[in-house]
Amino acid sequence: MSTDPANVLFAAPAHLWAAYRGALPRAFADAGVDVRLSPDHAPEAVDWIVYAPGGPVSDFSPYTRAKGVLSLWAGVERIVGTVPAHLPLARMVDDGLRQGMVEWVVGHVLRHHLGLDQHIRHQDGTWRHAPPPLASERPVTLLGLGELGLACALALSAMGFPVTGWSRRPKDVPRLVRCLAGPDGLTEALRGAGIVVLLTPLTPDTENLMDAVRLALPPRGFVLLNPGRGALVDDAALLEALNAGQVGHATLDVFRQEPLPPGHPFWAHPRVTVTPHIAAETRPATAARVIAENVRRGEAGLPLLHLVDRAAGY
Amino acid sequence: MSTDPANVLFAAPAHLWAAYRGALPRAFADAGVDVRLSPDHAPEAVDWIVYAPGGPVSDFSPYTRAKGVLSLWAGVERIVGTVPAHLPLARMVDDGLRQGMVEWVVGHVLRHHLGLDQHIRHQDGTWRHAPPPLASERPVTLLGLGELGLACALALSAMGFPVTGWSRRPKDVPRLVRCLAGPDGLTEALRGAGIVVLLTPLTPDTENLMDAVRLALPPRGFVLLNPGRGALVDDAALLEALNAGQVGHATLDVFRQEPLPPGHPFWAHPRVTVTPHIAAETRPATAARVIAENVRRGEAGLPLLHLVDRAAGY
Repeated sequence: MSTDPANVLFAAPAHLWAAYRGALPRAFADAGVDVRLSPDHAPEAVDWIVYAPGGPVSDFSPYTRAKGVLSLWAGVERIVGTVPAHLPLARMVDDGLRQGMVEWVVGHVLRHHLGLDQHIRHQDGTWRHAPPPLASERPVTLLGLGELGLACALALSAMGFPVTGWSRRPKDVPRLVRCLAGPDGLTEALRGAGIVVLLTPLTPDTENLMDAVRLALPPRGFVLLNPGRGALVDDAALLEALNAGQVGHATLDVFRQEPLPPGHPFWAHPRVTVTPHIAAETRPATAARVIAENVRRGEAGLPLLHLVDRAAGY
Repeated sequence: MSTDPANVLFAAPAHLWAAYRGALPRAFADAGVDVRLSPDHAPEAVDWIVYAPGGPVSDFSPYTRAKGVLSLWAGVERIVGTVPAHLPLARMVDDGLRQGMVEWVVGHVLRHHLGLDQHIRHQDGTWRHAPPPLASERPVTLLGLGELGLACALALSAMGFPVTGWSRRPKDVPRLVRCLAGPDGLTEALRGAGIVVLLTPLTPDTENLMDAVRLALPPRGFVLLNPGRGALVDDAALLEALNAGQVGHATLDVFRQEPLPPGHPFWAHPRVTVTPHIAAETRPATAARVIAENVRRGEAGLPLLHLVDRAAGY
């Protein structure tokens, strides 16, 4: 352990500095870690790099003394190829982010399950008494059973939905969730799903996971929710499946290009809802505590939390 | 116990007979109860009356042998004054109904919490990145902590909302729910509530529970959800509070007159959502099991479940 305060570089777009310049010092103080936090330390003096893409750092080679890179985001696909392999890289696993994701996913699942759009749009004076089925009659499939996927799966299961989860490798998940894995498991997980939620990490293996073939597997009219990563979906195949009625509705929070350009067909499509990347918002107050805890651990010689598996890419 | 099968009269509107004529015999068979079920037994031969208002029976005096009245509905305010006091009267407490209510309440709470209407209505190509607060920052108050209210309170609490419950008399509820009671408790429960859910029974004491005075207690712009009973709300006071912006939105599932007439101002009001009495739908498959179990208990000399407290009115 050094006796000097550690130098922590905040290397992220400027608007994030505005959000974190208050939250991070409070979190470091609460964790009892003595640091010098700044958005512009000299590279050779930096001990820890708090990082988000789009900021001042793209080349990590001058950071010769750095002990680790601490991502502000849960998704690290834009970082994992840039941060040198010898530098430990930790993902953000934020309670606030997880809670926000659970709320977005359960909210949109219930919206589609209950047919809320009909009630919100068509207040035309006609009393259409058609109670929705119960959640127990509406199978929901989650692709991805990481921190976020599992939290959503358990919340949906608690609401009464029969939940099937899928992950690349078999996982040990609570019995509330039927768990499938691998390519055959993916086909089985999609068949019979009334609502499909995408929460896998984005890797070369999962890009275009929902392509024309996979979009054809669930029953006609199924609902697709994507709060994960834009590139998990083949956009052209999705538009075709929407137009054909195979996908009844798609609610998308993430896109290959963000902000989604005003002229993109998703905006105008009557069966697409765009939400502006709000499902997995990192909350500065809770995220700062995760950063501070990892610096505390690193300075104390303890292993970092939420380390990225550099081979798997997440 | 009689050795003859009990005569069970189905005394409810004809469309309900269509829904129950299959479900009830199955439920009686599953419960091992030998009955003759019919919508038209001779009154003096009837042992049990399965009842909903609007059917053939309004005068119970010819049913001289009847051992009890088994309501198909959870709300008994239209029955409680009609059924003679010496006849045991049981409410419906249906798992399917409770589950449906939880789904409607959590769905509409999340809809308003997440601002879904904005996303559903305004797909105008403008990327408005404004993440909603977390559920933990959105206080929800439930008036009524019976079977339905408590189930909803616990589900909302599990989603992370700070939940305050109120009931007429103090109740022992799980610590997840802050529980208030009595008139002073009502004032305190309404102050600070971002979303208010009405689930009290309708009695002379709760008619117009949400009048002009009580509608003025929560913070400006609060959301009112009424899946309970139409007459819990003073309609004129609600329209005034909506027009003044004191109530930000009202989502109403129940009304003084149903179907709500096409010309009623609730239909046209931009800050009112009408849903057609679907929140507390009794599901024949599960409700039939409750009826059969009560007949079984009655025939075996056991006390009925879900007996109405005739003095309290529910």
